[in-house]
Amino acid sequence: MAGSGFGERLAASIEATTPLCVGIDPSASLLSSWGLADDATGLEVMGRRVVEAVVNTAAAVKPQVAFFERHGAAGYVALERVLADAREAGLVVVADAKRGDIDSTMSAYADAWLGAGSPLEADAVTTTAYLGIGAMGNLVELARQGAKGIFVVVASSNSEGRTLQRAQTESGRRVEEELLAELAELNEGERAETAATTGSFGAVVGATRTAGELDLASLHGPFLVPGVGAQGATPDDVATIFAGCRPGTVLVNASRSVLGQGPTHEGLRNAARQLGDELAVALGATT
Amino acid sequence: MAGSGFGERLAASIEATTPLCVGIDPSASLLSSWGLADDATGLEVMGRRVVEAVVNTAAAVKPQVAFFERHGAAGYVALERVLADAREAGLVVVADAKRGDIDSTMSAYADAWLGAGSPLEADAVTTTAYLGIGAMGNLVELARQGAKGIFVVVASSNSEGRTLQRAQTESGRRVEEELLAELAELNEGERAETAATTGSFGAVVGATRTAGELDLASLHGPFLVPGVGAQGATPDDVATIFAGCRPGTVLVNASRSVLGQGPTHEGLRNAARQLGDELAVALGATT
Repeated sequence: MAGSGFGERLAASIEATTPLCVGIDPSASLLSSWGLADDATGLEVMGRRVVEAVVNTAAAVKPQVAFFERHGAAGYVALERVLADAREAGLVVVADAKRGDIDSTMSAYADAWLGAGSPLEADAVTTTAYLGIGAMGNLVELARQGAKGIFVVVASSNSEGRTLQRAQTESGRRVEEELLAELAELNEGERAETAATTGSFGAVVGATRTAGELDLASLHGPFLVPGVGAQGATPDDVATIFAGCRPGTVLVNASRSVLGQGPTHEGLRNAARQLGDELAVALGATT
Repeated sequence: MAGSGFGERLAASIEATTPLCVGIDPSASLLSSWGLADDATGLEVMGRRVVEAVVNTAAAVKPQVAFFERHGAAGYVALERVLADAREAGLVVVADAKRGDIDSTMSAYADAWLGAGSPLEADAVTTTAYLGIGAMGNLVELARQGAKGIFVVVASSNSEGRTLQRAQTESGRRVEEELLAELAELNEGERAETAATTGSFGAVVGATRTAGELDLASLHGPFLVPGVGAQGATPDDVATIFAGCRPGTVLVNASRSVLGQGPTHEGLRNAARQLGDELAVALGATT
């Protein structure tokens, strides 16, 4: 049935709010700038305050797992609470974990981040594919069955990964094209089965990329887009790069430009509203 | 000064014991076969029992973080205890986390896994490089300063990642060659600075690869080698592939072939001894 998968849920959330995803990145420097301690309590306070402030404005939040892992198990207790809070508030929750492994190990990651009732349950998880999308078997199955999503890093916003991402495979396609095509195939399978318009197998594509480098519209799935704000790209850059992609498939992440306006509820909410509205206007005009 | 870095410490540990690294992979099925519950207590019991049994036989242990993460923060409490136990017992501890991100996020992972006094402190961590080794900045610094190591996945033991790993970069080299060369450069820098024989920047290269595919001896750093046992490769295969590499640089991981002989102390110890000795003989003969 249409509308049940992650891709459709995300599109509905974007339509009801804006294309903004707020990155919850409680780095030591941000915690300090908010007057919070660099400990598990600080992480939890920042995470929950962001969630509270961006509900109804952002379509999604993206906790960066690394900043919680810095504090070990105690940090993960904070992460569990932030994830649960955000899901309860109706936000789409993307765990930015960039997990990448094979077989039973990848299945364990799938259980951790996408399993129903898992303490770390999110709506989607980011992954890397150096070991191949084909080795992610159970993650794909679990996403399908549980209406969850994945975002595979395809074309990053930083420059250092471009040598690898642009390398040419035996088929003559670049690595990034190859991954995009594999994801498109997964979406095609899901769409054939469920009649969904948008599949649940997404790609991370940086807003700092050049328009036309990749046939993005062929994905028929969601994009998670870093690079706006601190990394220099603008909402208009996003609109140019993702021209031709369906509305509701482009989720734009921003962290510092929103969190830097905290710690007050008003500061956060206003920053999220302004950027969310700019993105809605920019993307609405071209998609 | 020589001998202070991770690469040298690992070589000393291999020399004092065997080239065996025991993978601590508490999957649901292994826990069940040991008669343990699939919960945080089960994880901790299995992890600590493995550590106890393989001390003085294995050079290292490699907890697979995914299986602990399956149980959220409670699983991480178990992981913290297993890591601390193993380090206290004098084993070299490789956290198999395959983390891969950029900038401040990668620095947070570095703090988590390699930071002195971090609750998850290990001796080395595995990483993936889809976003580029050049973006791992602080991880490299922290490894250098703290005598820690990293193992970047270069040529995996599974087949699904080979399309990407063999793709050709603009320089004409394959992705896997490019990464190996970048790691070799880091080792060269470290060796020039410290007069160490072996650097601390390692590569994961599967024992299922073909000999001669990569100029492995040029790394002058450690290898973490999956694929022996359950995945079909033998100690002799390892010896063939890593012929020409310095003794003490080849660390061979096995998990199921050791853990499957538990839960008794004797079963585990004997399995580790047998495989460790086979590896020492096979690798001693050619290196």
